[in-house]
Amino acid sequence: MSQQYVVINGNYVPVQDAKIHINDLSIQRGYGIFDYFRTKDGQPVFLEDHLDRFYQSASVMNLPVTQSREALKQLITGLIEKNNLPHSGIRITLTGGYSDNGYNLSSPNLLITQSAYNFSTEAFEKGISLVTYDHQRQLPQVKTIDYLQSIYLQPFINEHAADDVLYHDRGELRECPRSNFFIVTRDREIITPAEKILKGITRKKILGLEGLGAKEGNISLDDLRDIREAFIASTTKVVLPVLKIDGKAVGDGKPGEITRDIYERLIGLRGGVE
Amino acid sequence: MSQQYVVINGNYVPVQDAKIHINDLSIQRGYGIFDYFRTKDGQPVFLEDHLDRFYQSASVMNLPVTQSREALKQLITGLIEKNNLPHSGIRITLTGGYSDNGYNLSSPNLLITQSAYNFSTEAFEKGISLVTYDHQRQLPQVKTIDYLQSIYLQPFINEHAADDVLYHDRGELRECPRSNFFIVTRDREIITPAEKILKGITRKKILGLEGLGAKEGNISLDDLRDIREAFIASTTKVVLPVLKIDGKAVGDGKPGEITRDIYERLIGLRGGVE
Repeated sequence: MSQQYVVINGNYVPVQDAKIHINDLSIQRGYGIFDYFRTKDGQPVFLEDHLDRFYQSASVMNLPVTQSREALKQLITGLIEKNNLPHSGIRITLTGGYSDNGYNLSSPNLLITQSAYNFSTEAFEKGISLVTYDHQRQLPQVKTIDYLQSIYLQPFINEHAADDVLYHDRGELRECPRSNFFIVTRDREIITPAEKILKGITRKKILGLEGLGAKEGNISLDDLRDIREAFIASTTKVVLPVLKIDGKAVGDGKPGEITRDIYERLIGLRGGVE
Repeated sequence: MSQQYVVINGNYVPVQDAKIHINDLSIQRGYGIFDYFRTKDGQPVFLEDHLDRFYQSASVMNLPVTQSREALKQLITGLIEKNNLPHSGIRITLTGGYSDNGYNLSSPNLLITQSAYNFSTEAFEKGISLVTYDHQRQLPQVKTIDYLQSIYLQPFINEHAADDVLYHDRGELRECPRSNFFIVTRDREIITPAEKILKGITRKKILGLEGLGAKEGNISLDDLRDIREAFIASTTKVVLPVLKIDGKAVGDGKPGEITRDIYERLIGLRGGVE
C-alpha cells in the first residue's frame, strides 16, 4: 500500500508520524468531539449534515474551530486525493488541546483520519442481537469522544452473546453506543426515541423519507415485548435488522420487510452500494 | 530550568518529545484511567494507597499493567531523581492503547508525568464556593480520565461565581469532580457520601483519623440547609473549607474549627507543609 496521510491542524502528516503531545486534554481528561462520514467513489456522503453537526458539537463544548468550513472541506478533499481510498470512512476529531494546567481548555487539536471501508450487504441478512443496559449517556446530544461505558461493557455484551448494547434510562429506551434504535410496531408505526440521544444523520434521513411516516416518540422496555421489527441506523452500518433483544426473538426473528424497504431506500439516497 | 522528563511505557523521554499516536483509545474514545499523588522533599506521599487504587482501576477497566508494582516504583523513583522537583504532583496514566479498529482495547500506553507543586496554606483561609448540579458520574468508583461533564460545566461554574461544582444524583449528594465532600452537622457529626463516588485517598485518611468519628452516610440537598461546616478533601487540596453553597453561607461563612482540626491532622500525617 502506498503512503497514507492524516491531517493534524491543517498539515498533511504521514500516518506513522501522527502523534500529539500527552498534555492534550483528550488524553488527560477525555475531552473532545468528532464526526464521521463515509466516502463512496471518492465523494463524501452527506458531508454537509456531518459538518453541521461537527461545528455544532464544537460550539456546545466550547471548542473553537480555527478552520472555516471551506478550509475544512479543502483539507478533506486533499486527504481523499492523497490517500486514494475511494470507499472509506473519514473521522474529524477536535480535542481539548494542550492545557496549561491539565484542566482548562486550550487551542484544540484538529485531526482528520481516513480508513478504507468496504460496505457489505451480508451484514444486513445476518442482523444483530442486542442486550439492554440501564445507562444514560452524559451530554447525549453532542458527538463527544466519550465511549468509556460502552467499551467497558464489551465483556458484558460478549457474556450475553450479543453484538451490542441498547441503553435505557430507567426503562425509557435511548440508543446504542454508536447507532440509533428504531422499532416497527404491530400497527406498522416506525418509532425512534426522541430524547436524550445523539441525533444521528442516518436517523435524520430515515425520519425524512417521503411517505414513510417514521416519527420520534417514547419507547419503554415494556414496549419491546410485542413488536413487529426493530433495527439500528448509523453512518457505518446504514441499517441493520435487530433480530434478538435480551435473548428473545424480535418478530419472526428474520429481517423484516419494512426494515428492508428503509435500507434499500437509504442505499439509494447514498447512490448505491459502493 | 533543566531538562524535564516523563515516562512513556518504561522509557524516560524529554517532556517536549512526549507524544503518543492519535490511534490511542484515549484520543479516539476517551478511554483510560490514572492516579495522582504528591511528593514532599522528593518522597511520594501515600504511594501505596495510590498504587493500590491505580491497579484496581486498571483491573476494573480491563487494562493490563505490564509493569510490576516494583518496576513502577522504580520508574517513579528514577523520574523524581531525574527531574529534581522535590515538591511535586505525579500522575500515572494508563490509556486504552492503539486499537486496531478504533474501538477494541489494545496494549495500554503507560504515561508518568511530574509537575512542580508548592502547597499553600493561604487557600485554606480563603475557602471555596460550590454550586450544585444534578449529575451522576459514570463508573464513579473508578479513577477514569473522564472529566467531560466537569470541564463542560466551567462556564456554568463561573456564571454562578463558584469555584467548583458539587454533583448530586436527583437530590442525593455525591462529590465534586476532583474532590470528596464532607459536612459537619449541627450535632458535630462528620459525614461524607457513601455511594456512587470515587473513594479518595484523603477521604480514606479522614475516615481513619483516630477519635474523630467521621463516617460514610447519605446526605441530601435538603440536609445542606442547616449545617455547621462543610469541606472538600483531595490529594491536591488536602482539605478546603466550603464557605458557600449555591450562594448561601455555610455556618458562619468562615473556616470551621472541626475542618481546621482535620486539616492540621492531615498535614501532620503528610509530614508537614512542604
